[in-house]
Amino acid sequence: MTAVARTDLMPNRFVRGEAPLDPTREALIDRRERVLGAGYRLLYREPVHFVRAENMYLFGSNGDAYLDFYNNVPSLGHCHPEVVAAISAQAARLNINTRYLDETVLEYAESLVATFPDEIDRVMFTCTGSESNDLALRIARHVTGGTGIIVSRHAYHGTSASTAEISPNLGGAVKLGAHVRTIPVPGAVSVPEDDAAAFLEGKVKEAMMDLDRHGVRTAAFVADTIFSSDGVHTDPHGYLAPAVDAVQKAGALFIADEVQPGFGRMGRAMWGFDLHGIVPDLVTLGKPMGNGYPIGAVVGKQRYVDGFGAVARYFNTQSGTTVAIAAAHAVLRILMRDRLMENAVARGKELVEGLNSMRDDGRVIGDVRGQGLFIGVSVGAAETSNAERRQLALDLVNALRQRKVLISLCGANEDTLKIRPPIVCSSEHVAMFLDRLKASMDEVST
Amino acid sequence: MTAVARTDLMPNRFVRGEAPLDPTREALIDRRERVLGAGYRLLYREPVHFVRAENMYLFGSNGDAYLDFYNNVPSLGHCHPEVVAAISAQAARLNINTRYLDETVLEYAESLVATFPDEIDRVMFTCTGSESNDLALRIARHVTGGTGIIVSRHAYHGTSASTAEISPNLGGAVKLGAHVRTIPVPGAVSVPEDDAAAFLEGKVKEAMMDLDRHGVRTAAFVADTIFSSDGVHTDPHGYLAPAVDAVQKAGALFIADEVQPGFGRMGRAMWGFDLHGIVPDLVTLGKPMGNGYPIGAVVGKQRYVDGFGAVARYFNTQSGTTVAIAAAHAVLRILMRDRLMENAVARGKELVEGLNSMRDDGRVIGDVRGQGLFIGVSVGAAETSNAERRQLALDLVNALRQRKVLISLCGANEDTLKIRPPIVCSSEHVAMFLDRLKASMDEVST
Repeated sequence: MTAVARTDLMPNRFVRGEAPLDPTREALIDRRERVLGAGYRLLYREPVHFVRAENMYLFGSNGDAYLDFYNNVPSLGHCHPEVVAAISAQAARLNINTRYLDETVLEYAESLVATFPDEIDRVMFTCTGSESNDLALRIARHVTGGTGIIVSRHAYHGTSASTAEISPNLGGAVKLGAHVRTIPVPGAVSVPEDDAAAFLEGKVKEAMMDLDRHGVRTAAFVADTIFSSDGVHTDPHGYLAPAVDAVQKAGALFIADEVQPGFGRMGRAMWGFDLHGIVPDLVTLGKPMGNGYPIGAVVGKQRYVDGFGAVARYFNTQSGTTVAIAAAHAVLRILMRDRLMENAVARGKELVEGLNSMRDDGRVIGDVRGQGLFIGVSVGAAETSNAERRQLALDLVNALRQRKVLISLCGANEDTLKIRPPIVCSSEHVAMFLDRLKASMDEVST
Repeated sequence: MTAVARTDLMPNRFVRGEAPLDPTREALIDRRERVLGAGYRLLYREPVHFVRAENMYLFGSNGDAYLDFYNNVPSLGHCHPEVVAAISAQAARLNINTRYLDETVLEYAESLVATFPDEIDRVMFTCTGSESNDLALRIARHVTGGTGIIVSRHAYHGTSASTAEISPNLGGAVKLGAHVRTIPVPGAVSVPEDDAAAFLEGKVKEAMMDLDRHGVRTAAFVADTIFSSDGVHTDPHGYLAPAVDAVQKAGALFIADEVQPGFGRMGRAMWGFDLHGIVPDLVTLGKPMGNGYPIGAVVGKQRYVDGFGAVARYFNTQSGTTVAIAAAHAVLRILMRDRLMENAVARGKELVEGLNSMRDDGRVIGDVRGQGLFIGVSVGAAETSNAERRQLALDLVNALRQRKVLISLCGANEDTLKIRPPIVCSSEHVAMFLDRLKASMDEVST
């Protein structure tokens, strides 16, 4: 085991020289370094090379099938034939932007807002989750007149200038904005569940007071409702409510970032905020929305969305186009028709039970958290050092990759397994995942 | 003729009540207002409603064919069968992101950088032109340590927070950043061509001095190399060179925004900056790159792209994916194989000659500017008022729309016709456009 340097806080990144590479991979990595910007990172000690995909599997150039328990964009499975057909048919027929009249964008927008509480009734389309969060920040700052933003301690909300500066997860070289305050997530700092709501409320109030002390009005509290990059913290349901209430009472907005938890992945709820019994002011969408076709959205309360839009026009040439809408509408229809949220509940239960049965006194598998098919698993015994737990988690993820199963890591210490299979997975896939995880555990713990 | 209110500087926007609407359009507009954010704008007094498109034409619900001389995204023509086939085939086979190894992204990246000067040799992919400009600003600010940005007086560079604040074109409600300075484009303020280069150089230097006087280091001068929203100003070729030289000598970056002029539209050059004999530090791409599939890029000099990327990771889940790359590579191959830049030169010449022959002593058609198939035409006699010229231009665009030809407006006073047909257009399309423009001129000038 080599010690793991921790330079830019991207868990499970490829570092040249850490593992031997075959000539094909070596050549591809050389080409990448000669033409792609150095900002790109590959996953795994030995990066993977795919040529085909279908449903739950990605296939290597030699035909090897990798079980995908990580990618949340192809939430309906890779290359879903009906989504592909919808994209192909619409691309051949018409692809126009939102400055011309078109029924399809309205039909989808109406279907989408119907999945939200009544107060959330307006949509603006984007291409990515970053664009969604960036637009939500513009709206919040416009309507409140404030600039202060509160986020969780290891939050990730996007790659644009305005979202990167509220994303501590991007590492020390990407600076936080002067008007940004971070707060700990109760589950990540071992606050007992009974105290979680009051703890978070207190932290949010402190942050607003600190912003005010610096002459900064709070515009918004932005939270990924599953706190994915903080390590996946869903419980207890409702713990966000008092904090959100305090923010809204102070005249600031609560922005629910549903880019990762949204679109049914959590099974019991279409949106992560639903589990907390709250109504956000703005909700941001992305990743699985088009099952791989780039589309995102801001959905929100009319008074905010239109308070901004009445004076500031918003036009994104590539978003809300008829092909993007065709992809997104196919995704939403299939999600409902195939009762995939029910599948996420049932498969998630099997997954959590299997993981808990493998806890081995917490030597490798510790706390199992999450909801539906978004699961975080702490790795390593509590009495070991941060570096040891990080190393063990990294070894485990790479052992799984050698057994042709894809997952990755998250959390402040990069020691939480991030398990997010496409939500079409079956009991057989869950069993296969658990088998290979067991074998990987046996390998890394000997 | 009704007086034209000028609230948010979007030329040729729909305003409810200005023109009668049939019940179908009325109903669609009602639905839009109930579910889409108010930030959306429709084009034309009587918005158009399309159900199908092919090559140079968009088709209304009653089968009417509209000649598209405006949309620059479907630069190879609407629903180009080979691009559609490339998207469909790849979407059915594999759609992965840049954190896995894949040849296709490298093949395209290599082909793309081969169209640039040698010093520009690194690529980072995005989904939209806004994301490209936003990333370029992040890079420029990171590597220079400065925050000051210089743009043209009516520039438009995007919809993200960071690009909107350098886009005066978005109107008074969208505030410019405190570190942003605007400079006039020589052609837009009637500077003689012989003095254009020295004039622009002087303005850029003044802006840098003013930033410095305020304690702000200049990070970049950002320019759309055709100055589209300033009214289309291409001549004299080379007038940007001394200004760019001054910026680079001062240690700041020149960012060429090629989202509108790039990918061969200007005919004589693949990129607008080529006409000026300059080498930008960063170049931003978007709109026509995927002929409607969302993809953009930042292309630039290694020392800047990697100076940023070595410490700041950049990951855009939805960009550089195999399907986006398949679309973009098909576009680039077809552009080269079908010699579409030569077509842009030849059709552009026919278009400009036709427009010049219709100048009617400048009563309606005034100055004809541009390059290849990106043409700007001043409307109205110089001795008339700004409001009169704006009104005449708007009447003309709407008369053309009634004759089933799509163009729109640009320029500080919204009195420049913006003519940008897909670059596959034929001599017959140009002749048809000129005929209908003549009829529209006769209508509005009586």
